[in-house]
Amino acid sequence: MTATADHPTTVQPASPALAFAPRVPEDDPVFALHRGGKIATAVTSPLETRDDLSLAYTPGVARVCTAIAEAPVLAEDYTWRGNLVAVVTDGTAVLGLGDIGPAAALPVMEGKAALFKRFAGVDAVPICLDCTGVDEIVETVARLAPSFGGINLEDISAPRCFEIETRLQELLDIPVFHDDQHGTAIVALAALENAARLTGRQLGDLRAVVSGAGASGIAVTRILLSAGIGDIAVGDTKGIIHAGRDNLTPVKAAIAAETNRAGLTGSITEALAGADVFIGLSSGSVPEEAVATMAPDSIIFAMANPDPEIHPDVAHKYAKIVATGRSDFPNQINNVLAFPAVFRGALDVRATRVTPGMKLAAARALADVIADELAPDHIIPSPFDPRVAPAVAAAVAAAARADGVARR
Amino acid sequence: MTATADHPTTVQPASPALAFAPRVPEDDPVFALHRGGKIATAVTSPLETRDDLSLAYTPGVARVCTAIAEAPVLAEDYTWRGNLVAVVTDGTAVLGLGDIGPAAALPVMEGKAALFKRFAGVDAVPICLDCTGVDEIVETVARLAPSFGGINLEDISAPRCFEIETRLQELLDIPVFHDDQHGTAIVALAALENAARLTGRQLGDLRAVVSGAGASGIAVTRILLSAGIGDIAVGDTKGIIHAGRDNLTPVKAAIAAETNRAGLTGSITEALAGADVFIGLSSGSVPEEAVATMAPDSIIFAMANPDPEIHPDVAHKYAKIVATGRSDFPNQINNVLAFPAVFRGALDVRATRVTPGMKLAAARALADVIADELAPDHIIPSPFDPRVAPAVAAAVAAAARADGVARR
Repeated sequence: MTATADHPTTVQPASPALAFAPRVPEDDPVFALHRGGKIATAVTSPLETRDDLSLAYTPGVARVCTAIAEAPVLAEDYTWRGNLVAVVTDGTAVLGLGDIGPAAALPVMEGKAALFKRFAGVDAVPICLDCTGVDEIVETVARLAPSFGGINLEDISAPRCFEIETRLQELLDIPVFHDDQHGTAIVALAALENAARLTGRQLGDLRAVVSGAGASGIAVTRILLSAGIGDIAVGDTKGIIHAGRDNLTPVKAAIAAETNRAGLTGSITEALAGADVFIGLSSGSVPEEAVATMAPDSIIFAMANPDPEIHPDVAHKYAKIVATGRSDFPNQINNVLAFPAVFRGALDVRATRVTPGMKLAAARALADVIADELAPDHIIPSPFDPRVAPAVAAAVAAAARADGVARR
Repeated sequence: MTATADHPTTVQPASPALAFAPRVPEDDPVFALHRGGKIATAVTSPLETRDDLSLAYTPGVARVCTAIAEAPVLAEDYTWRGNLVAVVTDGTAVLGLGDIGPAAALPVMEGKAALFKRFAGVDAVPICLDCTGVDEIVETVARLAPSFGGINLEDISAPRCFEIETRLQELLDIPVFHDDQHGTAIVALAALENAARLTGRQLGDLRAVVSGAGASGIAVTRILLSAGIGDIAVGDTKGIIHAGRDNLTPVKAAIAAETNRAGLTGSITEALAGADVFIGLSSGSVPEEAVATMAPDSIIFAMANPDPEIHPDVAHKYAKIVATGRSDFPNQINNVLAFPAVFRGALDVRATRVTPGMKLAAARALADVIADELAPDHIIPSPFDPRVAPAVAAAVAAAARADGVARR
């Protein structure tokens, strides 16, 4: 937003409080761009005459209110909520910054809202909550829900994020989607499908190692299992997760039961010996010596940001295909390839939830966009590829219908 | 919003639920206009290249997050919240429709959000809450507050609205403003100031009768008292409020102590004998015979919607000046003359609250806009008068500084 006569953005010191106003690096283009924010509201109906007011506001609006009171589903079509997602956070796990609180999380949520609009025409509003308890977050979002057509949870730390998403989805009849989990999982699976294609393998034949058992590590593991991958070993800061380990959280205990068929124990390094795939979703690193023990033609997704678990140049010494989370290397695993279009598809058919089938369909559609163009440095589309959002949204909508969760 | 390829609005029946889809009168221009909603989000920063993404989103955005974490006040300038108001309701007192719930209230809140943008460049987001308890509403709005620069409460029934506003303003350091109370009060006072000018009287000499002791009746009474009006008798469905009446709510007991110096009892009809001003904010009516007993050159604001307490044609038989809440009669007392500009002024100086002085300043500035053009059928500006918002916003901002609640 630029400064205008009726929306000044120039600071005019006027009160003693200003003596404590912090300095920011105004020559930093990031701060210059963020001044006044990155999104705004817009009016989409005419408001230039008394007649306009009498249609959009009183007395005309009362007829729409009355119709919705009689049939609440009409709110989907006769308000903006049918195209509207709340981007909800408590600010506890923001980017790599950690628990910085709701106010400091707002620029990320606003950026996310901008991406929703830019890449899929979805209206989105950042909601940064000043509470961190599971019960509080669930009850607060449930109270807000009449205003929104979908809930995108964001940057909420594990393991609370799992329970919050599950409970909200049970309470609400609109899609609830934790992007750190499922957005990452969808894009990682799409990239892995194309990497397997390119190396002439089936997912069912692959043995993978997932490093990190937070929100994204758990979700990636689950989507790989539902996609039929051969076997997975999941590691956290204490090493490989296996059923015999003490003090597993409920989520990790469930993962232990579904993964690690070989019964591996010890560190990630031990799991990597002979593995086909490494997927890093941690803030840690993996030693070159361990990567060197992977199977031939291995696939490495080192997605930690800003520092990949192993530098792509080193990884390429051993791996056939390397991807990261960074935009300055090839094969960026970027959530923006998924979340706008997933909600676009879900909203288009008024889906009541995002099913596992919709997530798998999104991953396959995303992979298929570049099926005819695959190369080791091109296993996933660019975020700016205009084919992505329509293809993914259509696949998600079709899967919603197939799964019986579409309302139209 | 119009239908587009990636935002279809045509219903495509797909599931059994559709069999119960309600019919709406598609030939009604109100429904046609409301299809898809009346507002949208817009992206205000470029998102066309990888460099754009790295400034507006990761990794650049992390620098803004870190700065806000160190100095939360920076969120006002480096996110959209500095220009953003939440329009919050529980749907319990919507227009004349009553307690229709949060979903059915959304079209009104969305209209309000559109008016905020259209008339004062303020971004606004409707928040319709699925809870009605005072504690629940207060805690929910307080949890949301990090996302917003101001809170506009709307269509929340009395007496809960009074406590909700008071408690929220105590908790939050951003303006909390219940428009049904203060918006109405500001515009009514502005109109009354001009009516007094036009009839050569001082506010201090006027004796007024306020019919209705809900949100707007109480607020109008209070602003008239703070503007120095001579005396007021306030009536509700049980008649004139006086200190001797049983079972007064705390709010009405306070009103009883500050009004009705003459100690009137009985019905509104009795209070009207010899009164200079009648202000109707009820859903009731007032008999012509009672209006006939008012003082010469009387002033009648019959603001009930859609049916004024007395028809303007009848009122004009006895009154010098008549105003209503309707757009199809002269002198419409319309809140849109106040709330967008009040928040514009408050946000421009980062006010921490809306003080009584800011409300009085808004009313005076609004009245003064047409001080040189006054006529019996022109005591208040048109909602489309482009002089209104700048004048009112500037007066509100100046008053905020004078009252020491401006942060710049």
